[in-house]
Amino acid sequence: MRTYNLALIGFGGVNRALAQLIVEDPARFAPLGFGLKVVAITDLLMGSLVQSEGIDLGTVLSLPRGTTFASFAGGSATADNERVIRDSPADVVVEATFTDRIDGEPAASHVRWALESGKSVTTTNKGPVAFHGEALTRLAADNGALFAYEGTVLSGTPVLGLARDQLVGLSIRGFQGVLNGTSNYVIGRMEAGLSLESSVAEAQAEGYAEADPTADIGGSDVQLKVAILANELLSAGISPADVDTTGISGLTADDIVDAAREGKRYKLIGSARRTEDGRVVADVVPQAVGADHPLAHVPGATNAVSFETDLLGTVTITGPGAGRIETAFALITDIIAIHSHEKEKIDA
Amino acid sequence: MRTYNLALIGFGGVNRALAQLIVEDPARFAPLGFGLKVVAITDLLMGSLVQSEGIDLGTVLSLPRGTTFASFAGGSATADNERVIRDSPADVVVEATFTDRIDGEPAASHVRWALESGKSVTTTNKGPVAFHGEALTRLAADNGALFAYEGTVLSGTPVLGLARDQLVGLSIRGFQGVLNGTSNYVIGRMEAGLSLESSVAEAQAEGYAEADPTADIGGSDVQLKVAILANELLSAGISPADVDTTGISGLTADDIVDAAREGKRYKLIGSARRTEDGRVVADVVPQAVGADHPLAHVPGATNAVSFETDLLGTVTITGPGAGRIETAFALITDIIAIHSHEKEKIDA
Repeated sequence: MRTYNLALIGFGGVNRALAQLIVEDPARFAPLGFGLKVVAITDLLMGSLVQSEGIDLGTVLSLPRGTTFASFAGGSATADNERVIRDSPADVVVEATFTDRIDGEPAASHVRWALESGKSVTTTNKGPVAFHGEALTRLAADNGALFAYEGTVLSGTPVLGLARDQLVGLSIRGFQGVLNGTSNYVIGRMEAGLSLESSVAEAQAEGYAEADPTADIGGSDVQLKVAILANELLSAGISPADVDTTGISGLTADDIVDAAREGKRYKLIGSARRTEDGRVVADVVPQAVGADHPLAHVPGATNAVSFETDLLGTVTITGPGAGRIETAFALITDIIAIHSHEKEKIDA
Repeated sequence: MRTYNLALIGFGGVNRALAQLIVEDPARFAPLGFGLKVVAITDLLMGSLVQSEGIDLGTVLSLPRGTTFASFAGGSATADNERVIRDSPADVVVEATFTDRIDGEPAASHVRWALESGKSVTTTNKGPVAFHGEALTRLAADNGALFAYEGTVLSGTPVLGLARDQLVGLSIRGFQGVLNGTSNYVIGRMEAGLSLESSVAEAQAEGYAEADPTADIGGSDVQLKVAILANELLSAGISPADVDTTGISGLTADDIVDAAREGKRYKLIGSARRTEDGRVVADVVPQAVGADHPLAHVPGATNAVSFETDLLGTVTITGPGAGRIETAFALITDIIAIHSHEKEKIDA
């Protein structure tokens, strides 16, 4: 059975959850036809650790906050990402650092270094995909590697895989999604009578919203996701800047009440569709939808994507949009795809 | 590019829709990496037609009602299914005859004959899968063939493919589904104030319900689908008779009103789950569910399945549950899977 050596870039919630799954539940991976071994970890706060025989994940997961890897064999207090990505004996680089909303750096460079050295990449980081997805996918192909990013939209809910594997043979004309759990939760609380500000504060207290909720409430998180989905599902070839974006920050209690009076409710909907002249138009905008809209009842922090297709009409997938474990599952999904890719290479 | 020779067993709505897609839209198949050619058709009313060079689908689709294949080269007025399935130059047998609810015959024999002669099978027919799925899957493996049946649940909405390809790496603990469009439509009309009888009559007039709606309203259609899903998703090893089944025929206007008073609505839910001692319990029963239930808002003739998983919690797929084109798309999905299977055989 093949064992894949992983380099974890960023050792925050998601990669820690993956490490936990690997160390606590190895039986999960046996039926998949491969094993997983972590041979490198880098983290802005903890530094770098490379141990080609396999890192003891139990130990690194239990390190007290503020500990660096300096005292470990193969460790250093600085996150030497480029050296680790290029030179460590990893087969697969797992990129889970923060998302930069301007140009996707430095995560895009992490991905580039990995692919250039023939290593496949799985990432949950929207930046590299939204800003450089096409170039990185080409770079992967040129180097016999795979660039996989199921976790960039709807965490582990398999939207990209569903489209890629199950909706071939029909034509996807467009999609609409509830793609930001915080916004959806906040709108729900506003429907219950809270102000936008109180709803955001509550979402923060509940752990849904970041300390700085701008990307959620302002719509830029959804903007990146719409760009990723439009490029993936509609071959749109667009950048995030091509997605007209309005978040929910302008939504008022009156808007909510007026919509309810018409039997409608607001959802922050990110969508794209192919026009009759073949272009793809994409936007993010709060919309008042009727009860029969496929996204009308997506609750709380749940996310959903509705595909508009020629042969099936509307098909919708609904599931978690965030969460450490849920997002780590997306990494596993990607590694399964990388495993298939490796098997095809051997067969070819 | 490989061309698959198809034998269509049953030439009713679904196989006609497939024939239409093949003849009217051949460009759809080119990106899939294979071509399709129909070399045989059998039908209870039309007889048999075998033409190894390929049947002119435009001609057979435009035959007036009541015409048989008797006057065609390679044609006969009787449906000689066994001979056609065993001896025609088909690579893939497309079984779309009627569903028998007692033992799945004669469709199960159609499938058996095909698999015994090394031909892969795609079917939209619940009978063979619900009653003999495990044995037929084993028979397929023994003969290097694939037995595929995406269209037996939710027509072309890819429930089985989603579970097989996208939800590996996690554990499915159970599922709940709205699996019968007629029942769901009828309940919706009862919510609008109609009686069960008037609602059924309306569903018949709208083309949702069969002339004999017993299987829909009595729950046996859902019973077969729950058996298929439980065996596929939970390796339950059960028969339809193991699925305790109550349809909606006993549902009254009072039940609907009482549920609404509690903020609930009825859905006919087919479900199965693994118990703590490892058994699988499955049933079909009308349930009053709250507005936050993942199946509460599945509208009209739409169907949905919610998977309960360990790593993602609840993931739901919603889409059409019936329709000629929608169900024919499931056949295409299966042929794509058969194509992958053939490629793996070549590589192995």
